[in-house]
Amino acid sequence: MRKKAVVLLSGGLDSTTILAYAKSQGFDLYALSFFYGQRHKFELEASKKVAQQFGVVDHKIVKIDLRAFGGSALTAEIEVPKGRTEKEMEGEIPITYVPARNTIFLSFALAFAEVNKSNDIFIGVNAVDYSGYPDCRPEYIAAYQTMANLATKTGVEDSNNLTIHTPLIDLKKSEIIKMGIDLGVDYAITSTCYDPNKKGLPCGICDSCVLRLKGFEELGMKDPAEYQS
Amino acid sequence: MRKKAVVLLSGGLDSTTILAYAKSQGFDLYALSFFYGQRHKFELEASKKVAQQFGVVDHKIVKIDLRAFGGSALTAEIEVPKGRTEKEMEGEIPITYVPARNTIFLSFALAFAEVNKSNDIFIGVNAVDYSGYPDCRPEYIAAYQTMANLATKTGVEDSNNLTIHTPLIDLKKSEIIKMGIDLGVDYAITSTCYDPNKKGLPCGICDSCVLRLKGFEELGMKDPAEYQS
Repeated sequence: MRKKAVVLLSGGLDSTTILAYAKSQGFDLYALSFFYGQRHKFELEASKKVAQQFGVVDHKIVKIDLRAFGGSALTAEIEVPKGRTEKEMEGEIPITYVPARNTIFLSFALAFAEVNKSNDIFIGVNAVDYSGYPDCRPEYIAAYQTMANLATKTGVEDSNNLTIHTPLIDLKKSEIIKMGIDLGVDYAITSTCYDPNKKGLPCGICDSCVLRLKGFEELGMKDPAEYQS
Repeated sequence: MRKKAVVLLSGGLDSTTILAYAKSQGFDLYALSFFYGQRHKFELEASKKVAQQFGVVDHKIVKIDLRAFGGSALTAEIEVPKGRTEKEMEGEIPITYVPARNTIFLSFALAFAEVNKSNDIFIGVNAVDYSGYPDCRPEYIAAYQTMANLATKTGVEDSNNLTIHTPLIDLKKSEIIKMGIDLGVDYAITSTCYDPNKKGLPCGICDSCVLRLKGFEELGMKDPAEYQS
C-alpha cells in the first residue's frame, strides 16, 4: 500500500516545492489549505491549480477565522512593509508574523492525518529566510512532533509514528527554487506576494516578493510569474 | 497589573468550573469558545451565559470547520452511544473523540494568548473520566506546553513563560462539581450533553450525561439542570 502524506499547501513557492518533493518520495498526496482572512487570498486559487497539477488525492480548504485575534499585517488592517532589503528584514519578528499560525495549521494537518491514517506531514517552513518567525525554527518543529505523537489515537497505539517533514528548513530561497525546478515545478502558477493587486498580480516589493526575486536572480534566472508593471 | 488568562470555555460542566477556578486565582478572564460543527451547539449558548456570569473581559467564539475531516460522532453522521455504564466506557477511545480537537483548541488559545499578552491558558481536560482520550493525558499537556513556549514571540524572548493549567486533570467528576460549588458555579446553566433535543435539553443517557449525573449522585445531590422528561 502506498504511503499517504498530508501537505500544508498555501500555493506559494515553498509549499508548492514541498508538494513536489513529497510526491517524489512516493507519497499519495493529501493537500490542506486555509482561508484565514489573509489579504493575499489569491494564493488559494494558486493552491487549487498546484494541487490539480500534482494530482493530489484530496485537497481540503478549511476556513478559519484568525482575524478574530488580529495582531498581524497579514490579517489585520496594518500596512504590509514594502521595499525593504534582505538586510533590513533581519533580526526582528516581522509584522507579517501571524500569531501561532503554524501551530494552528499543523494542528489541522494532524486532524486530517489522523482521519486518513497518514503518518507523515509536510510543511514548508524555512529557518533561513524566515529566521524571525519563532514557529519556523527546528526546535519548534521537533517539539511539535513530540506533542503530536502524544495527541492522537495513533500516538496511543504507537508513540513514534508521526513525522513532521521540513525538507526546506535549512535551504536558501535559491536552493528551494533549484530543488523545485529539478522536480518539475512550474513557478509561474505559484503565488507568493503578501499584498497582490485586484487581479492577483504580485507587488514585487513586499518582503516575500523581494526574497523570491532574489532567489531567482541568484540562479541567474527570471521569475516566470507575472508581476504588476 | 492583573494577570490575564485565556480559558477554553465550552459551556459544559468542566470548563465552567475552570473559569471559576481561574477567576479565584486572581486572573482577568479571556474566554474562548468554538463553533466546530458540533451536534451539541446549545453548549455555545451556555458558554455565553457562563461568560457573562463570571464577568469575562472578552469572550471570543471562533468558527472552525472540523466537519471537513469527519471521523467523530460529535461532528459526523455517526450515532452518539447511549445508555452505557461507566464500566462500558472504559478502555477504549470513544467514537465521540474528535481527532486532534484539544490540539486545535489549544492552538487557537495560544494565538489569543499571544495577541493579548497572556502567559496562562486554562483547559478543563480530565484524565480520569476521559481516560480514553489521548489528548487529555498529562504527558500530552506537558509536551504541548514545551512546544507552545517555542512557538511564539513570547517564547523567543523567554522560553519558559507560558503555562497550560489543567486544574481538573486528576479529579473525579464529583470532585470537580464539589470544587465548582465551593466557587459559586451555577451548574443549572451549563450544558454537558452530546446529543440534546431541539430545546437544548440534555438526554441523560449519553456518556457525558451519565458521568455528570453520577458525579452529582456521589455528592448526594440532584443535578440542577433540566433534563428531557
